[in-house]
Amino acid sequence: MSVSVFEHPYLSGLLGDAEIADLFSVTTEVDAMLAFEAALARAEADLGLIPVSAAEHIATVCGSFVPDIDALRAGTARDGVVVPDLVRQLRDAVGPEAGAHVHFGATSQDVIDTALMLRLKQGCLLLIGRLSVLEARLNDGDQEFGERRLMGHTRMQAALPIKVSDRISAWRDPLVRHRQRLESFAADGFAVQFGGAVGTLEKLSTKAAAIRLALAAELSLSDAPQWQSQRDRLVEFSGILAMISGSLGKIGQDIALLAQMGGEIALAGGGASSTMAHKQNPVAAEALVAIGRFNAVQASGMQQAMIHEQERSGAAWTLEWMILPGMVMATGAGLRLALELVGNIRSIGRDGD
Amino acid sequence: MSVSVFEHPYLSGLLGDAEIADLFSVTTEVDAMLAFEAALARAEADLGLIPVSAAEHIATVCGSFVPDIDALRAGTARDGVVVPDLVRQLRDAVGPEAGAHVHFGATSQDVIDTALMLRLKQGCLLLIGRLSVLEARLNDGDQEFGERRLMGHTRMQAALPIKVSDRISAWRDPLVRHRQRLESFAADGFAVQFGGAVGTLEKLSTKAAAIRLALAAELSLSDAPQWQSQRDRLVEFSGILAMISGSLGKIGQDIALLAQMGGEIALAGGGASSTMAHKQNPVAAEALVAIGRFNAVQASGMQQAMIHEQERSGAAWTLEWMILPGMVMATGAGLRLALELVGNIRSIGRDGD
Amino acid sequence: MSVSVFEHPYLSGLLGDAEIADLFSVTTEVDAMLAFEAALARAEADLGLIPVSAAEHIATVCGSFVPDIDALRAGTARDGVVVPDLVRQLRDAVGPEAGAHVHFGATSQDVIDTALMLRLKQGCLLLIGRLSVLEARLNDGDQEFGERRLMGHTRMQAALPIKVSDRISAWRDPLVRHRQRLESFAADGFAVQFGGAVGTLEKLSTKAAAIRLALAAELSLSDAPQWQSQRDRLVEFSGILAMISGSLGKIGQDIALLAQMGGEIALAGGGASSTMAHKQNPVAAEALVAIGRFNAVQASGMQQAMIHEQERSGAAWTLEWMILPGMVMATGAGLRLALELVGNIRSIGRDGD
Amino acid sequence: MSVSVFEHPYLSGLLGDAEIADLFSVTTEVDAMLAFEAALARAEADLGLIPVSAAEHIATVCGSFVPDIDALRAGTARDGVVVPDLVRQLRDAVGPEAGAHVHFGATSQDVIDTALMLRLKQGCLLLIGRLSVLEARLNDGDQEFGERRLMGHTRMQAALPIKVSDRISAWRDPLVRHRQRLESFAADGFAVQFGGAVGTLEKLSTKAAAIRLALAAELSLSDAPQWQSQRDRLVEFSGILAMISGSLGKIGQDIALLAQMGGEIALAGGGASSTMAHKQNPVAAEALVAIGRFNAVQASGMQQAMIHEQERSGAAWTLEWMILPGMVMATGAGLRLALELVGNIRSIGRDGD
Repeated sequence: MSVSVFEHPYLSGLLGDAEIADLFSVTTEVDAMLAFEAALARAEADLGLIPVSAAEHIATVCGSFVPDIDALRAGTARDGVVVPDLVRQLRDAVGPEAGAHVHFGATSQDVIDTALMLRLKQGCLLLIGRLSVLEARLNDGDQEFGERRLMGHTRMQAALPIKVSDRISAWRDPLVRHRQRLESFAADGFAVQFGGAVGTLEKLSTKAAAIRLALAAELSLSDAPQWQSQRDRLVEFSGILAMISGSLGKIGQDIALLAQMGGEIALAGGGASSTMAHKQNPVAAEALVAIGRFNAVQASGMQQAMIHEQERSGAAWTLEWMILPGMVMATGAGLRLALELVGNIRSIGRDGD
Repeated sequence: MSVSVFEHPYLSGLLGDAEIADLFSVTTEVDAMLAFEAALARAEADLGLIPVSAAEHIATVCGSFVPDIDALRAGTARDGVVVPDLVRQLRDAVGPEAGAHVHFGATSQDVIDTALMLRLKQGCLLLIGRLSVLEARLNDGDQEFGERRLMGHTRMQAALPIKVSDRISAWRDPLVRHRQRLESFAADGFAVQFGGAVGTLEKLSTKAAAIRLALAAELSLSDAPQWQSQRDRLVEFSGILAMISGSLGKIGQDIALLAQMGGEIALAGGGASSTMAHKQNPVAAEALVAIGRFNAVQASGMQQAMIHEQERSGAAWTLEWMILPGMVMATGAGLRLALELVGNIRSIGRDGD
Repeated sequence: MSVSVFEHPYLSGLLGDAEIADLFSVTTEVDAMLAFEAALARAEADLGLIPVSAAEHIATVCGSFVPDIDALRAGTARDGVVVPDLVRQLRDAVGPEAGAHVHFGATSQDVIDTALMLRLKQGCLLLIGRLSVLEARLNDGDQEFGERRLMGHTRMQAALPIKVSDRISAWRDPLVRHRQRLESFAADGFAVQFGGAVGTLEKLSTKAAAIRLALAAELSLSDAPQWQSQRDRLVEFSGILAMISGSLGKIGQDIALLAQMGGEIALAGGGASSTMAHKQNPVAAEALVAIGRFNAVQASGMQQAMIHEQERSGAAWTLEWMILPGMVMATGAGLRLALELVGNIRSIGRDGD
Repeated sequence: MSVSVFEHPYLSGLLGDAEIADLFSVTTEVDAMLAFEAALARAEADLGLIPVSAAEHIATVCGSFVPDIDALRAGTARDGVVVPDLVRQLRDAVGPEAGAHVHFGATSQDVIDTALMLRLKQGCLLLIGRLSVLEARLNDGDQEFGERRLMGHTRMQAALPIKVSDRISAWRDPLVRHRQRLESFAADGFAVQFGGAVGTLEKLSTKAAAIRLALAAELSLSDAPQWQSQRDRLVEFSGILAMISGSLGKIGQDIALLAQMGGEIALAGGGASSTMAHKQNPVAAEALVAIGRFNAVQASGMQQAMIHEQERSGAAWTLEWMILPGMVMATGAGLRLALELVGNIRSIGRDGD
């Protein structure tokens, strides 16, 4: 399990993020898909589409169902998507009577996209929280060192002195805006996906909109018309992630340059070299630069996936699966590292006159 | 003059956009820089930093000054930025007395970034206008053909019939959101850049904030603290551009697929082949796909440029110059082509039962 | 363990590749690093730099040493690289006497880059083998169906009939060239990295070149001067990977389009839909398109990592770790899927006159 | 004419390249297309497909024909490609008799791809020449300063001293490999494209291969089967361009860091600041970093364009037109700037003990 640095047994020590990784674990993913199926059954029962007893039974089973992962794997290899086999397994667990009411009117994409939104929403809150803490830490640093002098550099040359506070503002202010972007996105960006086979909810006829609304409410997601071939919300969100990583990369680059020039920063916790005992490598700072460039690359993949043909593109959709989780992980890891790095600043700037 | 398709003497017939190109012409660019210098002089005079008569003279000269482009070119080659030579020329034109007050307290980046914002704001309004027209055209199509049947396709396979209206919604709804994104961005995203040598406006002391505010007001830009190393606004804007192009690319791809399968769309104005007289190539549809993928690629470059070290990064800043104008052009061209393409739909869907 | 589709418990059924994944497992990676340390000790003993008995002991220990992964993880988090802690553990295992001779003259990058090359070389051979098999399968298809007719399409429009053989050539010929590119690269591209702290092998004085040569020979890698800040070999290799995926993506796109239009292809093994029992989704074909676009995105990250400052850039190097393994996996998975897809073609083309 | 920095009236002073720009001028492009038509006519006459007198007349007209650019522009807007209108104009110029023999058996893509190859080949030779000169200049620097000391830096920290020669090797050796890559590519990579409507040269029957061979010989290009949907040669070439720019970016980054730290490099010709007279900005060094990152971004676009569906993809092909010329320009400009920058090194390193 080591292709991805985010899950690599030791590289994840540097580049991983346990909290975000949990959101993308199979357990959390399956739970989110089962939450969808449970909520759907309840909403459909409320609106009289399926028997209340069936819905209750489905919801109960969903609450504890543990699928056969090997079968899901074989199903995904065959169908390109996990849902057909998951639904098959779930129907078996639910039994013949209520089983017929499982997943009624829904399609694979409804389950997967909604389950993604549920987890992205949690991830978003987590990132907002970390951004707030990082802002606070930067404010603390500003309080402590803000009036000291730092040599301002433009175009890689010493220019004129600035205050430490000026530099800290250049680090913090974009983070404040990114946090606001996430908050603004969270207001309605995490939307339920519910469209059925081709987006028309053709099996639900006049009750379609009401069921979708109830489903969204059950899941604490926004209600919105199906967006199965309209990926702009995901792309907007991924763009904010890349912006966060980019701004953290700037902080990392600045700190690495300060550390290289010496004299204006003291950092605790630098990394050791296998050959040079005297060195204190600004490991977290460099990792932030790497993460910033990584997400800048990945952002292009999410943008490519907008060319999502017809009612559902397997190709464009699969591309998202390959790109988006890593972007969230990288952003989380970046914030974790930035908190560590800023916390390790023992001193910055020089006492001026 | 043919490296760029956007300015190529004949490829621009397909991929260019005269209105957007005008915003990035040297004339418009120089005018925007001169507008900055004039507004700065006025603002500084209002606040008593420079003589009113000098400001008036500077503003008058700026109103008609035509720089020596060859000298600007040599200056840019030497300085990496056009402003030192432009200011030198402008001071010569203004004369020795008022000349000393030209560009007071400002730096190259103030001029260039603000001049960019002035033009991006115009470009944004233009794109908003085109999006509105495109929405209206799609609504017209919906009105005319919306109740007809179209075969819905998922994963590149015929699935179930949908209404033409369903497909048109999948095209239009993201455009509505993109327009709202642009409108929301325009509310305060086009901000004046004013920071002086290292962002501290050190020559303006206590009057710095007031002058910046006045400058912003003169130029009808938002007031904001200097953002010379904080490039998130530009990146956010470029992300919206890429999203627009991506959604247009989806429309193009869908129409090209409809045209390929035949029977459900009739298009006027297809392109000729040099060998096959019977063909009607969906040229605009394919160009939309190309433009969508182009901007998806470029978006990565803007994200990379966020790692903008210290008080001003020549490298990161230059990278933006290489990427952003092309993204605006591509977006403009995409909207122009989409309007043409949608206008060429003579019929879509089949009469259903 | 599910952030990455390549290692995801069920998505890897679609997008994973067991053989390639094995090359990037921690076991294989640690073994490759230990192989480096053993070979180094032997080479240094042969040239009289360390005692032969120490080298023998080191090599023996390396043959069976199993490191404490938790400690490696903590070390990587601290040092940015796993080697300092691995060497510490290895020295402990080797004991005080020979321990002092472990890793003599080498630096972390020597170990990691060489261990990477060892595994990429294996991966390359594996990909070459699969390309050969795929070429053979395409030749078989050509043999069977080549003389049949297929409607040639240009610009998404039916143009003129071609032979199935023409289409198969357009699929196969680039694969032949890619295989030759890999073979040509393999001739000397998989080079040992050995430079010591700053690339000068300063501890080995006049014996440096001889030891590097012996080390390369021990490991069956090419000998080359240290390339720690010269990443072009890795970038060239990753470029070939992206080209392979791109060509497979074209095959996938073509087959998906054939399947969509119907009548000219019969495929076994399509995927099921959770709602539409009549559908046969061309899952592997779409996955090939996704993989092609994924690697096209990632290629940009490897190119960015060429801007590798000074004697060793932690940032640029870390970026490679985040990108390259996924590219190899995607290429391997693409070839696996292409073999499956081509094997599933039951018929292609129409009998012509 | 200012969207693109490469053609911008003053930014081209920094980022342009007159020699490469000339290759992408409309004049050179049209001349290359006319060279194709002339060579085709001659080859077809030699093989008895068209009258010798017609071929002679066509070739003569092609030698001096100047097309109506406005009409080409309108044609490109309509047809998505310039050739149908160019051929129409050329036939008019040639007159009714021989006119019928113009472009016989060829398609638009034959003309455009071959005309591109003709110019890329020239560009390649030009880049090879510059790489050789740059290598020589670096060798001169090595001769002069190689034995001096430089502080080696790893992970943005002073590590151990190296020789200036070590650093220069890290700059030069990849350039040598890139030059060899270009030379190796040039051996057969610049191939004629000739396939007719759908790649089968269906109008030329048994003489098709002989005519293609003769055409290639006339144009001094390699002979190869049509590659209209096989874009790997172009992608391979663009990958080498990006590698060159990346290696130059590393040189630029290193020099900018040396200039920032001071004491180890003296550069002539730095850029002025509009506010800080004391500064000497390492403008060319920063531009090299920007160019390296630019081409790293663009490389992704060429890779995306490999997914070139069916016999000819308007979308993928157009994407190449949007990306490739800028990559060649950026590479040329990078080499020009690197020559200037290396030429401006007055001193590097310190006298050691």
